[in-house]
Order: sequence, then C-alpha cells, then structure tokens
Amino acid sequence: MWEVAEELNAMLVFAEHRYYGESLPFGNKSFTDSKHLNYLTSEQALADFAILIQHIRKTIPGAQNTPVIAIGGSYGGMLAAWLRMKYPHVVDGALAASAPIWQFQDLVPCSVFNRIVTNDFKKSGKGCSESIRNSWEAIKRVSSTGEGLQWLSSAFHLCSPLKSSQDAAALKAWLSETWVNLAMVNYPYKADFLQPLPAWPIQVVCKFLKDPSLSDKLLLQNIFQAVNIYYNYSGVASCLNISHTATKNLGEVGWYYQACTEMVMPMCTDGVNDMFEPQKWDFQAFSEECFKLWGVRPRPSWITSVYGGKNISSHSNIIFRCLCSSSFPWLLSPVELEKVGVVPGSWEARRLTTEMEELG
Amino acid sequence: MWEVAEELNAMLVFAEHRYYGESLPFGNKSFTDSKHLNYLTSEQALADFAILIQHIRKTIPGAQNTPVIAIGGSYGGMLAAWLRMKYPHVVDGALAASAPIWQFQDLVPCSVFNRIVTNDFKKSGKGCSESIRNSWEAIKRVSSTGEGLQWLSSAFHLCSPLKSSQDAAALKAWLSETWVNLAMVNYPYKADFLQPLPAWPIQVVCKFLKDPSLSDKLLLQNIFQAVNIYYNYSGVASCLNISHTATKNLGEVGWYYQACTEMVMPMCTDGVNDMFEPQKWDFQAFSEECFKLWGVRPRPSWITSVYGGKNISSHSNIIFRCLCSSSFPWLLSPVELEKVGVVPGSWEARRLTTEMEELG
Repeated sequence: MWEVAEELNAMLVFAEHRYYGESLPFGNKSFTDSKHLNYLTSEQALADFAILIQHIRKTIPGAQNTPVIAIGGSYGGMLAAWLRMKYPHVVDGALAASAPIWQFQDLVPCSVFNRIVTNDFKKSGKGCSESIRNSWEAIKRVSSTGEGLQWLSSAFHLCSPLKSSQDAAALKAWLSETWVNLAMVNYPYKADFLQPLPAWPIQVVCKFLKDPSLSDKLLLQNIFQAVNIYYNYSGVASCLNISHTATKNLGEVGWYYQACTEMVMPMCTDGVNDMFEPQKWDFQAFSEECFKLWGVRPRPSWITSVYGGKNISSHSNIIFRCLCSSSFPWLLSPVELEKVGVVPGSWEARRLTTEMEELG
Repeated sequence: MWEVAEELNAMLVFAEHRYYGESLPFGNKSFTDSKHLNYLTSEQALADFAILIQHIRKTIPGAQNTPVIAIGGSYGGMLAAWLRMKYPHVVDGALAASAPIWQFQDLVPCSVFNRIVTNDFKKSGKGCSESIRNSWEAIKRVSSTGEGLQWLSSAFHLCSPLKSSQDAAALKAWLSETWVNLAMVNYPYKADFLQPLPAWPIQVVCKFLKDPSLSDKLLLQNIFQAVNIYYNYSGVASCLNISHTATKNLGEVGWYYQACTEMVMPMCTDGVNDMFEPQKWDFQAFSEECFKLWGVRPRPSWITSVYGGKNISSHSNIIFRCLCSSSFPWLLSPVELEKVGVVPGSWEARRLTTEMEELG
C-alpha cells in the first residue's frame, strides 16, 4: 500500500471508525447505554467516510478530482466494499481484503468460518488440528478433579488458578479464541498486529502439536507450548491471563454492540469437520444476552437487506481478496467474483477455488 | 401503468411513505416535535420500501424471483431513482417521472424551477405569463388603500376579506403557489390530482389572460377568472380561501419538516426571466424558521452527499422522464441521461433538449 501510493503519488488516509480509538462521539459516555451507542452502525460509518472524502476533496489542493479507492481488511474490508456499493459517486473502487460479507444469516453455513480456521491448522503440520480437537476432552477429564484443575493452572502458567469447571470452560473458550486469532494473523512474515509473532505462526505452533494420540497431560503440555507462541513470543510474560485474548485494543465493546444490533454473524462448530468443541449457533441465547446488556435485540437479516447479500452483481470496481494466508471466509462464487472484480485466474481466484474444493 | 401491468401479468404495489397518509409511526403524536419526526427521512423511506419488497417476495406465491421496477413521480420519482441507486439488489430498475433530483444546493440555479413554470404559461397562450407578471404590481397598487383591499376581496370572491398589506402579500403568495400547482398538474387529459381540472388546464387558464396591458382592476378580474379554473372548476365553491392551496392532502407538515432537514431545494425568482415577484433564495431566513418550528437546522448539502448529485453515471436501469406536460425541472444533461437510461431521440429526450434550449 505504502509503495503503491508513493508510485502513484497518492495520498493515504486512515479514517478511524466512529466509536473506536479516539473517535468517541460522547467521550467517556459513548458506551454507557444504547442511547449513546445508537449512532454506532456501519451505515453511519460509511456516511462518515463519504463526508470525510468530500471534505478532503474540497480542502486539500489537488484532491478535487482525484480518484479514490477504499481499502480495508476484515470488517474494514466489508466497509470498503459497502462504501463503493452505496457511495459510487464518492469512491471509484474498493479493495476488500478478507471481507466476510457473506458471514450473515443464511448466506453460508455457520460452520464455514471454523472449518477454514481448522483447514489452516490441518495444512500447517501433521497431527496439528487433531491434537487441538483432542485437547477439549483432555481438558474435561483433567479438570474433573481439584488436583487436575491445579495441574492445569500450573501447566498453562495461568496468572489466576482455575477453581471450578466453569473456569475450565473459560480456559477452553480462551484456547478456541486463540486458535481463531492465530488464523487471522497467519502472515507469511514476522508481524505484530494482535501480538508479536513469527512468520507463518501456525506452522510454528504446529511444531508442538504433531502427536494427537498422547496422554492427556502430555498433550496439554504441548497445547501450552503452542499457545505460548501466541501469548509469549517475546518471552516477557511471567504468566498467562485467560481473561485476555489480546484483541482488546480492537474495541471489543463497540464490536460486541454492533454484533448485538446489525453485525450478526452466525458461527458454529461440530467437532467433526472442524477441530473445535461442538457448539450450535444459538440465536435466542445470543439475543437474550444482548437484551440483558443493552436492552437491544439483534436484527439478523438487516445487513443482507441493506447491502444485498449475494446479489451484488450490479456493482462494479470491487476487488475481493484474502490477506495472503489468513483465513476469513470470503466465500464468493467465482462467477460473482468475476462480475465484481477479482481477475479470473489470479492468485486470489486460485486460492479461492482451492479453498472451495477443500471445503467441498 | 395499469395497462402495462395487466399486459405483463405484474402486480402493482402502492407503498405509502412513512409519516404520510395513515403511515404514522407515533399515531397522533407523529408530528408533535423533532423527537417524533426524527425518523422521517428519505433514507428511512427507502429502507421501508426495500423491506416491504423483500416481504412481498417472501410471502406472495410467485413473487420470489420476479423483477421489480420502482415507479414514482416528483418526490416519489426521486425516491424511485434513489431506491435503484441504493438497493439495486432489491429493484431491477426505476422509472423516475418528473423527479427533480438536481434541485439541490449548487446543482442547478435556484431560478430554474420557476423559469420552467413560466415557460409553460408562455407556451400556453399569448400574453399569459406577462399578465401574471404584471398582476403583482397591480395588486400592490390596488391594495394600498382600504377601499382597494375591499375591492380585491370581492373581486377574488375571498371567504375572509383582506384587511392589511400583509393580507395582500398572502394573496400574492397564494396566487404564486396556484400557478406552480397548475404547472405540476398540467396534464393533457381531464384529471383530479390536486383539484378536478380540465385537460391542459394552463391553456384554459390562459384564455383569460391574453392582454397584459389592461388596467389594474380589469387585469385582476381576469386573474380571478383564471385561478377560479383551478379552485372552482366544478363550480361548487361559494368563496375562495387563500389559506388553502389544495395541496394539504399531500402531507404539508411532513414535507416541510423534510425540507427543514434534508430536502433543501433552493428556489428563487427574478421577475425578468420568470413571471413571479422577485424573491432571492434566503437560506439563513429559512434555517431560522426551521429552528423556530422544530429546533432543527437544514443540511443543504446532505442529499448530494448521499445520492451523488450529478455524479450518477455508475448506476444503471433508471429512466428519468417527465409527466407529459408537467414541468418539474429534471435538468439532466443528455449525456448523463443516456448513461442512466433515457432512450436518446425518444420523446423524453426531445422534450428535454427543447426545454434546455428554451432556457438557454
């Protein structure tokens, strides 16, 4: 991006999404209740970007008639694509990287995301995804006694010892989230997005997870070594805190509110086609939690109503691609992709086709 | 529309815009203050239509995969065009009749609308627009005495007699609005949209307005005959009420609120290129009035930011046309029109070209 911008003599503008970082419309009160959170929507964010671009055009010499390309990854990739869809008079095109614009109600199976994550582990080392799949039962067995909980706390170098089966469940949730996060930052180069990590971190992690048939305690010691790559690659952490998954800086509260209103992205696991503990998508329970937290109910079909779901062929100049090896489920059919913008036969299209085949 | 629908075996759905007719989100309280009026925006109306269409697709047998065309005139024409722009996954195309999508800040001169209205009168009879232009000074002169006010009240068969120069100004405003309304319903056939009217009503009106050089009272007697066509074509009105212009049923309060927020359509007259009393576009005064009424301030650039102003060439399947002889300023350049949808060389394009030439 930096290099291309220099080559094109272009300006790079990083726009902060409202309610994230320092862009708090009500300062400290922004997250207090749904009345203050009410203006946190993707539509409002898109309007912000449109107005910002128009402002830049008006105020920066030379910017008046310059083409503008929206660029983003993940949610930011969705926003980039949606910005081109809704404001084609403001942006001339969009590069949407790892943008799961179909991860909404009824567009893809809720299992897709975690199957792709599993795939990344499967491909990165023999026995790797199986080891993780077996770890859940191992944790369940070990944590069934007080002594086992103590052993787990010490084996995982936890800052606060586990005291109950609920704590053991929290350990499992923390591990799951860790594997997912690793898939999201599985870059081919050393990087520090969520955490400082080596190149191809999943391959590094999988070096510890070659034998899924080990006894419970040996398997779990390996699991610890593996997650320790993620949480302690720099070697400075004296203990691991399972109440943190190092995505806090991504604005968890704001995102959770968005998930509780319009960004309802159904996820599930079955433990067979993926390496996670089986968990159904329970909209009702999710809705109850949202109501308890903010008095709001999620609207699962809204995003598809507004942005079109799979019916996006009347739009133009949008390139959907993945961030190198990361694994967001960007499951557009190649036909749609050609219409919207990915060059057929390109690296992106090949990777897509491979992924589609692997997933059956 | 009815005939084509029958021919195509299509369903016609008339969707009522929120806050109009019976679609009142807060019942009787809908118009009480800006808190209740807050949900009255074109964006919300478009979302309503999108959701309604999706609902119909789901619930009406056979509607699932049927193409949908949005149709509308005037503001409804703008909505039809905007619906296709923002929800191309919901409607396959739009027929936007007399849709003044450029009647917003800086897109066309504020004088355009009234010049087109004037043009309709100019074309409909010799001396017609000149008679109207001369009537303003005539009213001013006659209304300068108490006796003159009395004469005016009787000559115009007014229900409440004029008592001051302010009342005379109200008479002029009422006359102006009447001429504009006539231009909007200048259909080539007998109709009853705002009022029951003959075919080509402006031609009928202009029959009374052939001699602009008459003395004040004779001229104004003719003016009365002319407006009487509009207000009393059926012959049942015993007197005329200048506090009514027969657009009340179009939801004036709601529309005024929209004008005070996003639908800011600058209008002006100069009395030279048009037949009206000169009046500048005074945004500041308008803004103050909006603030006084509802505590809101109009955002004159918002519609252009959201819907693209003249930069609409990336959209498709939108036909802009005029309602036969009515006169909304649909000043799209022929180039844009071809891109968006009007068939070049068609009746619409010809009329457009003529109008553009007439206006210079």
